[in-house]
Amino acid sequence: MTPGPADARVTVVQTEPEFGAVDANRQATVDAVREHADADLVVLPELATSGYVFESHGEVDAAAEPADGPTAEAWSAVASETDTWVVGGFPEADGDDRYNSSLVVSPGGVEGVYRKVHLWNEEKRWFEAGEDLPVFDTPFGRLGVQICNDVWFPELTTKQAQSGVDLVAVPTNWVPEPADRPAGWTMGVHHAVANANANRVFFACADRAGTERGVTFEGQSVVVDPDGVPLAGPLPDSGSHSATADCDLARARDKALTPRDDVLADRRPDVYDDQ
Amino acid sequence: MTPGPADARVTVVQTEPEFGAVDANRQATVDAVREHADADLVVLPELATSGYVFESHGEVDAAAEPADGPTAEAWSAVASETDTWVVGGFPEADGDDRYNSSLVVSPGGVEGVYRKVHLWNEEKRWFEAGEDLPVFDTPFGRLGVQICNDVWFPELTTKQAQSGVDLVAVPTNWVPEPADRPAGWTMGVHHAVANANANRVFFACADRAGTERGVTFEGQSVVVDPDGVPLAGPLPDSGSHSATADCDLARARDKALTPRDDVLADRRPDVYDDQ
Repeated sequence: MTPGPADARVTVVQTEPEFGAVDANRQATVDAVREHADADLVVLPELATSGYVFESHGEVDAAAEPADGPTAEAWSAVASETDTWVVGGFPEADGDDRYNSSLVVSPGGVEGVYRKVHLWNEEKRWFEAGEDLPVFDTPFGRLGVQICNDVWFPELTTKQAQSGVDLVAVPTNWVPEPADRPAGWTMGVHHAVANANANRVFFACADRAGTERGVTFEGQSVVVDPDGVPLAGPLPDSGSHSATADCDLARARDKALTPRDDVLADRRPDVYDDQ
Repeated sequence: MTPGPADARVTVVQTEPEFGAVDANRQATVDAVREHADADLVVLPELATSGYVFESHGEVDAAAEPADGPTAEAWSAVASETDTWVVGGFPEADGDDRYNSSLVVSPGGVEGVYRKVHLWNEEKRWFEAGEDLPVFDTPFGRLGVQICNDVWFPELTTKQAQSGVDLVAVPTNWVPEPADRPAGWTMGVHHAVANANANRVFFACADRAGTERGVTFEGQSVVVDPDGVPLAGPLPDSGSHSATADCDLARARDKALTPRDDVLADRRPDVYDDQ
């Protein structure tokens, strides 16, 4: 039976992985989960074990591991130890295929994997695209996952909300675009806010920070409520930090804004479908 | 033949209509267009002639007029006089039906009407919902229209972008929700930014200001470019103002972000359709 939604303490952890230093990066994520043992859910960045700026298939292969590999083991162990759920990104190896994936781990072990649906730029050289939107039942509510560029495609969130998702965990590696935007005008945050508000779900976005091979990441990790209001963060645009919010996930089950307005029922697919 | 996109000077006008004072409100919009005679396009607020907070069908009927009524005549005259396109909101009467509509007027006269697709709250008592997303060819590019609550439904913008729209004109009457949001955290602006950036189109949102029957409107009118960056505004949350931006509408025809990324082609309806 699907549990009803409950209060959940959600922590987004902003790390600075070092490219290719998989063991050290993995240990940093384990330490971060242990440091936030009071959380019900810890969200870690995209590709948190490997870093992001791959330059060859060989580099991807060197960092990739199966969904039951050492990262799954390490996150399962610390999830069990701390009684915490963990969502975090890693490069997945499945036979000859590679995916930009996120593990979803409960205190009982690996619950599943989300494979990034909307790959960005050179990721299309290294990774296959995901095909599925799994929904994870937890004691505090239903989790969905998106990774980075996925938040730019709002239909994904609508589909997840229609599937009963209460909170979307977003491991991400946002980069500052456009370069001339106003200070703090982080486009990923705007999209998380809009997606949360349009579908009345929570968003928990864990970005990385730091500079890797000339690419500077954007930080600004944030937890957003179904009104589109940040409950914690956005964090600074550089440095390792965390942000924690107590989320009343039952709010995501109520799609009514007024007695006459319901964000899902008011959609008009008759006007804009067959796209 | 559809003209190619060109630079356009776009002005959003933030007015403070007085409820029910149709003649005075209409004159204020005409004066505003005349004041911005250097613009190629002037966008006026939703229900700019009537005010917003109706309490009876009789009040709606008293303010409503056909799409070739006195407002169409007044805006056509000033559009011709100033060689400007005008998009603005009014309560439309079509036989026994009433719509929350926007006129699209060129220097040559009325080009058409957009009827709000996603009605909000008590509007559902007064108005029928629109069924169509007309696209208007202008000398500077293709216009689409949304009204207020429409921006909360991102599939509408995607459909318009797929139909070749370069700029979405948004007459609106945003109200501050949620009440406890951070300062400047105007949800309509977040949605305009996200919609513009996700589909690489321009958004020109003209909100009203002032308080009417206990409802305070939000101002924050804004012109947003295809990067999601404000070119003009957001305007203050109270008072009558305008904001003008020179928009290179050709930018909206390029949906590529990198040689590997295209905001429309990268959609994955195989994953999230049949909603």
